[in-house]
Amino acid sequence: MGRIFNFNAGPAALPLEVLREVQEELLDFDGTGMSVLEISHRSPAFEKVLQDTKSDIRDLLALPEDFGIFFMAGGGSLQFSCVPYNFLSEGKVAAYADTGSFSDKAFQEAEKVGKAVKVFSSKAQGYDRVPRPEEIRLPEQCAYLHITGNNTIEGTEYFDYPETGDIPLIADMSSEILSRPFPVEKFSLIYSGAQKNIGPAGTVLVLAKKDFVAGRDKKLPVMLNYETMLDKDSLYNTPPVFAIYIVGKVAKWLKKQGGLAAVETVNRKKAALLYDLLDTYPEFYKGRAAKDSRSIMNVTFNLPSKELEAKFAEEGKQQGLGGLKGHRSVGGIRASIYNAMPLAGCEALAAFMEKFYKDNVK
Amino acid sequence: MGRIFNFNAGPAALPLEVLREVQEELLDFDGTGMSVLEISHRSPAFEKVLQDTKSDIRDLLALPEDFGIFFMAGGGSLQFSCVPYNFLSEGKVAAYADTGSFSDKAFQEAEKVGKAVKVFSSKAQGYDRVPRPEEIRLPEQCAYLHITGNNTIEGTEYFDYPETGDIPLIADMSSEILSRPFPVEKFSLIYSGAQKNIGPAGTVLVLAKKDFVAGRDKKLPVMLNYETMLDKDSLYNTPPVFAIYIVGKVAKWLKKQGGLAAVETVNRKKAALLYDLLDTYPEFYKGRAAKDSRSIMNVTFNLPSKELEAKFAEEGKQQGLGGLKGHRSVGGIRASIYNAMPLAGCEALAAFMEKFYKDNVK
Repeated sequence: MGRIFNFNAGPAALPLEVLREVQEELLDFDGTGMSVLEISHRSPAFEKVLQDTKSDIRDLLALPEDFGIFFMAGGGSLQFSCVPYNFLSEGKVAAYADTGSFSDKAFQEAEKVGKAVKVFSSKAQGYDRVPRPEEIRLPEQCAYLHITGNNTIEGTEYFDYPETGDIPLIADMSSEILSRPFPVEKFSLIYSGAQKNIGPAGTVLVLAKKDFVAGRDKKLPVMLNYETMLDKDSLYNTPPVFAIYIVGKVAKWLKKQGGLAAVETVNRKKAALLYDLLDTYPEFYKGRAAKDSRSIMNVTFNLPSKELEAKFAEEGKQQGLGGLKGHRSVGGIRASIYNAMPLAGCEALAAFMEKFYKDNVK
Repeated sequence: MGRIFNFNAGPAALPLEVLREVQEELLDFDGTGMSVLEISHRSPAFEKVLQDTKSDIRDLLALPEDFGIFFMAGGGSLQFSCVPYNFLSEGKVAAYADTGSFSDKAFQEAEKVGKAVKVFSSKAQGYDRVPRPEEIRLPEQCAYLHITGNNTIEGTEYFDYPETGDIPLIADMSSEILSRPFPVEKFSLIYSGAQKNIGPAGTVLVLAKKDFVAGRDKKLPVMLNYETMLDKDSLYNTPPVFAIYIVGKVAKWLKKQGGLAAVETVNRKKAALLYDLLDTYPEFYKGRAAKDSRSIMNVTFNLPSKELEAKFAEEGKQQGLGGLKGHRSVGGIRASIYNAMPLAGCEALAAFMEKFYKDNVK
């Protein structure tokens, strides 16, 4: 079959232009006579990939010089442990804003390491929203506040970030990084699994204030030590070469789109096409997220019955709209519309939703 | 330029046949209308990749049913921490055979977790050999013995494994796994970074006795917990989909070569071509490994001077023999000749060595 519109939540769609380039140069990368899958991580060819990737990401985010950029392995889930192992010391309390399944998992890993508290939770309301800044009260002796910037499963996203003053703010931005500009200087550390907006599964982008990661405990497992990863410039051990190479290509592609402000405009337009339908037919397309928390990356909703939801996902698939089934933990429908989803994909989905409504409304 | 013979130590050469298949199907995997880089790790298409890969590896190794197979992230370096975190409890002593730079790194990670001792070390002799089985004496209250099956940097390899009786034997087999048959039932757990013999950088293959990994401490960081990784069948979180997909293709390719016994025959022939030259011109090509420890994966040697070594690597490169420089920590020359290096590559290198000797001997 031909290429479909891929609404999967992650691993997710990549820009077709990027995939074509990868395909073309797969047997001989940059005149090395080797595939990029075979080159040494210490070769000049990869060194160039790594430095270009970092520099393009720095440009895209207008990242201040006091931030370091590095790549780690193990996905967001290993980061859930890295954060408390690095920053939750004896006598301190880690604060977590609980806005979804992944926030809760991050919290559970922190609890294994030391004292952790939830300073906000929307769990009882089915994780329908993120907190407003003024709702967050930090505990005494607070080590850091951890937030999940975009909640992939639930379809909610922060647009106003908490004010934490001197307390470090740490964010999991796996599903929205590089989808729009944001005030990066408010954060001490940001980690992002690549497999949604910026690349394939297999690497995590970390942006961290250099001062914040300096002075880590030498007894940390070396692969969890942010300071080592920064000091060794992602090359303490063999990094996931291929995944970083693709992140680099995606970063170049984002620059070609006009940078993050231009990308945000398109992303908001894409999301609006779908949310407009939820607002037009609220009894049929029942949005899961509170309006002011609506994610522009993951649009989640329910239909009047499970049968209709199954029919929606199946008919969508037959029309080349793949991956619309909601996460197995919550059901319903989810359209993930990351950077690589073209506007045409959301237009096609909106047209399908309009017709599906007309065909199926009672 | 055309494809070269790639003697890099890892990331390393992959079979050209595998690379061509990957290239061909890169835009549409298995009729999904998506690239394998974009498919969900919970999709039927990836589920098939994962199960086929496991089943082919089981066939190749004749792996008994009491062993589980799973994939982890973070490379060998994260495994260095996983092993003591999982198996080194209070009051126990971890034993390490120190046969190279990576053994020593593994030992250092264990020391962070609990009591660890080196029960053998060839460090003073420049890591020229691995121990004979009878040289290993295990301490009282021994948690496990950890060995490095093949020492990539030093060019030594175990062919007779220590007898540990009831004490679990754990091995890092990152650079020799699937290069020949071996008595897997002697081991409790084996881990192998994929980027040498079996795939690209980005995933680790773990073979473990199910009984051995059962009952882990629930307070372990979840991504370090072997039991969780086994129970969740490599899908606790998003695994490195693409790296596993390539490991699967390499496993199928190995079966097509006739399985591991056939692969071993070729590998031994390849190594013999090079070691024969070391034995013929021992004053010029000075082998680093003791004869009975010679690795059939990494052939390491020195030339009479650093200048000659640099000239050797450079002239080799000009003739399409890439990656011959030794590891930056030890210098010299290293030819890594993993499964994907064809016999023709070693023949070309041997011919080059013969001529280089004649042109440069005093």
